[in-house]
Amino acid sequence: MKLKRSSRLVDITAFLLQHPHQIIPLSYFSDRYESAKSSISEDLAIIKDNFESLGAGRLHTLAGATGGVSYMPCMGRQEAEQLLGKLKEQMTRADRLLPGGYLYMTDILGKPEYVNAIGRLIASVYIDEKIDAIMTMETKGIPLAYAVASQRSVPVVVVRRTSKVTEGSTVSINYISGSSKRIQTMVLPRRSLKENARVLIVDDFMKAGGTMKGMMNLSREFGAVVAGMAVFVEKKDEQRKLVNHYTSLLKLSITETENTLKIEDGNVMERLSDCSAPIKNA
Amino acid sequence: MKLKRSSRLVDITAFLLQHPHQIIPLSYFSDRYESAKSSISEDLAIIKDNFESLGAGRLHTLAGATGGVSYMPCMGRQEAEQLLGKLKEQMTRADRLLPGGYLYMTDILGKPEYVNAIGRLIASVYIDEKIDAIMTMETKGIPLAYAVASQRSVPVVVVRRTSKVTEGSTVSINYISGSSKRIQTMVLPRRSLKENARVLIVDDFMKAGGTMKGMMNLSREFGAVVAGMAVFVEKKDEQRKLVNHYTSLLKLSITETENTLKIEDGNVMERLSDCSAPIKNA
Repeated sequence: MKLKRSSRLVDITAFLLQHPHQIIPLSYFSDRYESAKSSISEDLAIIKDNFESLGAGRLHTLAGATGGVSYMPCMGRQEAEQLLGKLKEQMTRADRLLPGGYLYMTDILGKPEYVNAIGRLIASVYIDEKIDAIMTMETKGIPLAYAVASQRSVPVVVVRRTSKVTEGSTVSINYISGSSKRIQTMVLPRRSLKENARVLIVDDFMKAGGTMKGMMNLSREFGAVVAGMAVFVEKKDEQRKLVNHYTSLLKLSITETENTLKIEDGNVMERLSDCSAPIKNA
Repeated sequence: MKLKRSSRLVDITAFLLQHPHQIIPLSYFSDRYESAKSSISEDLAIIKDNFESLGAGRLHTLAGATGGVSYMPCMGRQEAEQLLGKLKEQMTRADRLLPGGYLYMTDILGKPEYVNAIGRLIASVYIDEKIDAIMTMETKGIPLAYAVASQRSVPVVVVRRTSKVTEGSTVSINYISGSSKRIQTMVLPRRSLKENARVLIVDDFMKAGGTMKGMMNLSREFGAVVAGMAVFVEKKDEQRKLVNHYTSLLKLSITETENTLKIEDGNVMERLSDCSAPIKNA
C-alpha cells in the first residue's frame, strides 16, 4: 500500500520495536509502502534521532547492497535510575520478609511492566555482546529470561531440576548449592544448545552463586560460551560468591534477627552501556 | 521538550505499544511535547488510522475532562492465519514425537517471536473481556501467560505443584488428572488473587482438561471469576473433555502406532474478535 510519511513513521516504529536486533533490509519497507529507498532512509533518520534523544535505543543503519537497519533497545541512565528507585521502594516493604530470611517477590515478578523493564535494563548492559541464547533455571527466573530474550530476539533455554519426558534426551550435571552445601542436579535437553553458542545467564535471586556456577558448568558441557550473567537481586554478606563478573540490579541484606531488610543498588549502573555509543565491530 | 509532528508520531507510537490497555491522559502527551491537546488529538487520529488499517490493534479515545487514549493490541485474521500456518509447519516435523505419545515443543516455546505472537493472538480473542489476571500452571505455560499478560498489562499468577517457602501462606486443592486419573495437588499463594478478580487461564497443552478444571476450581476458592481459558495445543480424540468454552490454537492427533502426528487448526479462528469492531460498554 502507498503510504504518506506520517503513516510510514508510525508503521516503521511499530515494526522495529517488535523486531529488535534483527537486520531489516530497506527493501522490506520500500516494497511495503511502495516508496523510494531514499524516502525510507529519511524516515529512518527521523526515527533514529528520536530513539536516541528519548532513550529508546540505538538504530544502526548498514549501507550498501546488503543495506538494512537494526534496532537495538537500550535503557538510558535516567530511566534505569527511576526503575531501580521504584523497585527498591516496592521491595522495602516489611511484609515481604518470610520465615527463614526468604523474601516474597512473587507480586513484583508477576507484573509484566516490571519484568519487561528489568529485561530491557539487563539487555542494555549486554547490548554490545553477541548473544545466541538466554539461559535460566526453573521456575522464578523464567519470566525475566523471556523478557531479556524478547529484547534480543534469541531463544530461551530453561534448565530443570529433573528431566521431563516431553523434552527428549537430556544432559545433566550435579552441583553443590553454595548456601546449603547440598548436592543438587540440573538438566538440559540435548537439543537446546549448539556448540559455541554465546549464552547470557539470567536469574531472579542469587545467594552464594551455586546455581549460577552450575549453569556455567552446564553451558561448558554443551561447548557453549558464557557471555554474561545477570541477577535481579543478590544477597549481600553471604560467604564469598562462587562466581565473578555478574550484573545485579539490587542487593539485599537482612539483619541478624531477621526482622528488617535493607535493599541497595547492585552494580548495574556501573555496568550499563552508553545508549548513544557508536556500535563496535560494525 | 518541544517536538515536531514527525517526532511526536514516533514517540507516541512507541509509548502506546509499551502501555497496552492503559488509559493515557492526553495531558501526558501535551505536557511531554509542550504541544496543544488539539495537536495531540490529530497525532492520535493518524496513529489510529494506521493501527486499524495495518492490523496492529484498536485505539480508543475517550472524550471529556477525563479524556485519554487507550491502545488495545489486536491481531487481524490474515496475520492470525499466517501465524497458525507457520506453527503447523514447525509442529509437523516427525522428530517431535517422543516415546509415550508426547510432543517436543520446547524449541517453539523457547522462541520469544513465537511466544509473543501466540500471546498477541490469545489476547485478541479476549480483547472485549475485562481481565484482571492471567493464571497458568508451572512450568511450560509460564512464557505464554506472560506474553498474554504483557498485551493486557495485568499480572500473572503461577499455580505450583508444591508450595514454596518464598511464597508465604498458600491455598491448595486436590484434583484428578483427566488422562492419568491420578490425584494431584495445586497450590497458589494466598496473596496472589483478589476476590471477584476476572481470570484468564492460559496453558501450553491440554489432554483431557483436568489441569484446566483444577485451575477453574482453584480460582473459585479465591472467589475469582474465570473470564476465559486458552491453550496452545489440545489433544484431539481424548475422552470427553472436562472443560468447555476454551480457545485452542492447534489440535494434535497421534496415530495408534504413535508413529505419525497430525496437526490441525483449533477453534481460535472462530473465536477471534474483529479488530476494527466498535468498543463495547465504552
